[in-house]
Amino acid sequence: MPGIKKARIAIVGCGVVGGATAQYLATSEDILTTKTGLQLQLKYVIDKDFTNAKRLGLDEKLFCTDLGKALGDPEVDIVVELVGGINFAKQVIESALKAKKHVVTANKALLAHHQKELLALARANGVCLAFEASCGGGIPLIRAIYDGLMANRIDALYGIVNGTCNYILTSMTQKGLSFEEALSQAQKLGLAEADPTLDISGGDTAHKLTILASLAFARFVPWEAFPVSGIQNLDAYDVTTGGELGYTVKLLAIARRVGEKLSLMVRPAFISKTHPLAWVSGPFNAVSIYGDTVGHTMYYGRGAGGKPTASAIAGDIISIVNGSYAEVFNNNSIWQDTTAPASLASEDEFTARYYLRLMVEDKPGVLANVSAILSEQGIGISSVLQHEHSLDTEKGIPVVITTYKTVEGHVKEALAKIRKLPCSKSEPVCITILDEHAEYS
Amino acid sequence: MPGIKKARIAIVGCGVVGGATAQYLATSEDILTTKTGLQLQLKYVIDKDFTNAKRLGLDEKLFCTDLGKALGDPEVDIVVELVGGINFAKQVIESALKAKKHVVTANKALLAHHQKELLALARANGVCLAFEASCGGGIPLIRAIYDGLMANRIDALYGIVNGTCNYILTSMTQKGLSFEEALSQAQKLGLAEADPTLDISGGDTAHKLTILASLAFARFVPWEAFPVSGIQNLDAYDVTTGGELGYTVKLLAIARRVGEKLSLMVRPAFISKTHPLAWVSGPFNAVSIYGDTVGHTMYYGRGAGGKPTASAIAGDIISIVNGSYAEVFNNNSIWQDTTAPASLASEDEFTARYYLRLMVEDKPGVLANVSAILSEQGIGISSVLQHEHSLDTEKGIPVVITTYKTVEGHVKEALAKIRKLPCSKSEPVCITILDEHAEYS
Repeated sequence: MPGIKKARIAIVGCGVVGGATAQYLATSEDILTTKTGLQLQLKYVIDKDFTNAKRLGLDEKLFCTDLGKALGDPEVDIVVELVGGINFAKQVIESALKAKKHVVTANKALLAHHQKELLALARANGVCLAFEASCGGGIPLIRAIYDGLMANRIDALYGIVNGTCNYILTSMTQKGLSFEEALSQAQKLGLAEADPTLDISGGDTAHKLTILASLAFARFVPWEAFPVSGIQNLDAYDVTTGGELGYTVKLLAIARRVGEKLSLMVRPAFISKTHPLAWVSGPFNAVSIYGDTVGHTMYYGRGAGGKPTASAIAGDIISIVNGSYAEVFNNNSIWQDTTAPASLASEDEFTARYYLRLMVEDKPGVLANVSAILSEQGIGISSVLQHEHSLDTEKGIPVVITTYKTVEGHVKEALAKIRKLPCSKSEPVCITILDEHAEYS
Repeated sequence: MPGIKKARIAIVGCGVVGGATAQYLATSEDILTTKTGLQLQLKYVIDKDFTNAKRLGLDEKLFCTDLGKALGDPEVDIVVELVGGINFAKQVIESALKAKKHVVTANKALLAHHQKELLALARANGVCLAFEASCGGGIPLIRAIYDGLMANRIDALYGIVNGTCNYILTSMTQKGLSFEEALSQAQKLGLAEADPTLDISGGDTAHKLTILASLAFARFVPWEAFPVSGIQNLDAYDVTTGGELGYTVKLLAIARRVGEKLSLMVRPAFISKTHPLAWVSGPFNAVSIYGDTVGHTMYYGRGAGGKPTASAIAGDIISIVNGSYAEVFNNNSIWQDTTAPASLASEDEFTARYYLRLMVEDKPGVLANVSAILSEQGIGISSVLQHEHSLDTEKGIPVVITTYKTVEGHVKEALAKIRKLPCSKSEPVCITILDEHAEYS
């Protein structure tokens, strides 16, 4: 057995996650040494403002406002970037890598935009860049891809990776709230930001999908190359009606292998109430991964928050210091800087079932006209639901149709034609229905 | 980047899992090299009978009846033990380790009994023993414990790790079948053995709990040191009645940290229908792990079968060949051969809620007598359920009581006293109710 390996660590950014990580490292030296056989010592907490650091009772001797001092300290082995955002965080990581420090980060926005060049820079300097904490908080999810499932060709990945959206959708589903009511509740509970745009628009989920899909499919996935829609336009009526039909709506990061192409997207979608992802409620995250050998596996846990994220960051630190991460970082050919660009399938090629809510006049012949258009596009009707109503019919009355599996481009064409029918009173709603992905397809 | 690492592999035992693993390795050289940067070559398939190997179309040049030949071949780096059982499998692993070959195994029975000495023998010979496939089939679960969650003190682990039992319990729950009916169906579908004793008695689950708890709590857990009960005596009446009360019954591997002690057991238990483990149906497995930093995480997938198990075995081979496994195997102090013995809490100290089904005479005063006994033991009543009935009252009529959280020893004493009441007609049924384990307790 080798002698005890030691490392000294600098944390940059002492907010919620930085503070929790610093506190963890400052108080866990003994337990870590007992369990991992490693000596991990927090040496610097770097920030401009130490209000949070002081509130947490961190030792003021750790406080440092000068990143250059930590990077110039030959004792520092690992820099943990937790400032968030893109520009300054990128400078922090680049300067740390150039100073030949390993870097651990939770910064999904930065990784979505610049992962390839940062990985290459790490490799050029003979150090590692680790980022388990960037997706799914404390869930050991990225490890499942680069280690546990490495023997598999991954065929598909479906993820609930934004706790804010999942909390809002759970409230809409379980309490029948409108989007606005559910968002307002989440904000009151601190589960949504004052400006929730990045979460509810699907942007944060798209960042994580870029990271996960790159590794899972061993392809360079450029940021902003796939369609992203959020939950802000979801209507409580559709959430409830989908529920009657046996579905739960989730904001999903979707990635599928289709021959040599990848089909990637972020959107709210209906999944069967019997699928494990449908059960993931409140702020929890979960990701289903379908491998050609393992079949369906799922990973579940807290996707955000100081302590869960600190668990993932500390896990990365341990793997770097014991040397196991370098072996996967240097041997596996799945990292963005070592893989070919992904060839992406267009959204119109996507195959799924669809929930269509048409807003039409309440008069004879409407269903015949609609059915004829769907039929022309080769779209089969799986179910029709039209409730008796006492609605203001100015905007039309809702007729809900679910389709058999079809191609999204055909659905778009059909909806454009249906919208032009005289009986069509307002914009139809279209929500993807995802059947359980076939194992061993 | 280092040069491409190579390894040659001998598989011992070509049954369902051995055959699937051999077939995987024989057909995946290209994809493995592309993804892992490693060259893995299957060199020997060792068995006495090659019927299955031939059926799978494996190259007959691989077939070998002489284990000694493979162990004497200096080109062989890794021996995969898939013969199952204890005695001969132990000889295979011991001789492979002594020949300084790394060993990968899926053999949970052997590991439950002899893990400590086998790990020590591996270490003494400077090689690794890896066993991801021994628990939870293809789920990267053991890795979550020795890698992803390493920064945590694990506080509890609850696992559904036997697909046969979970299939039977799912049938009892969803279709209202009796145990015998559900077992018979499972046998017809090949999901239960002709002799299902090891599965339904909880024995297989206990093997896996020994392995998982040893790693999770970094303690040597001796086999047969904790109470184990199976599902063979579960009555459909209780499964249904538990369902009415909001619970689902699962055969659980249970491990909790209680101060410096561990509380370990295998038993069927009621869990709330809202707990993620309640949703795990059919032959799937899942394990919930509660860490002091990460909170609740859960791992889900296929717990058995050729391909899922081959995925885990191949994952171990990859980690051994790229060198990452040696780092965790040599640095982490969580392996049975490097840890102190566990101090186990007695079953009587276990705290939970309980479902009690008493079989009593249908006459006034019964509930008063029963309540008085429970009250004497300090046991609070949470709910009482007595249906109107048209039963043969020879064995008494069922009165179901659920308790507040209490100590198991008190429940046993109370039940012994209740059994002696004149109104008590037959043996009461007692099923543990597990509330959601508190995160960050």
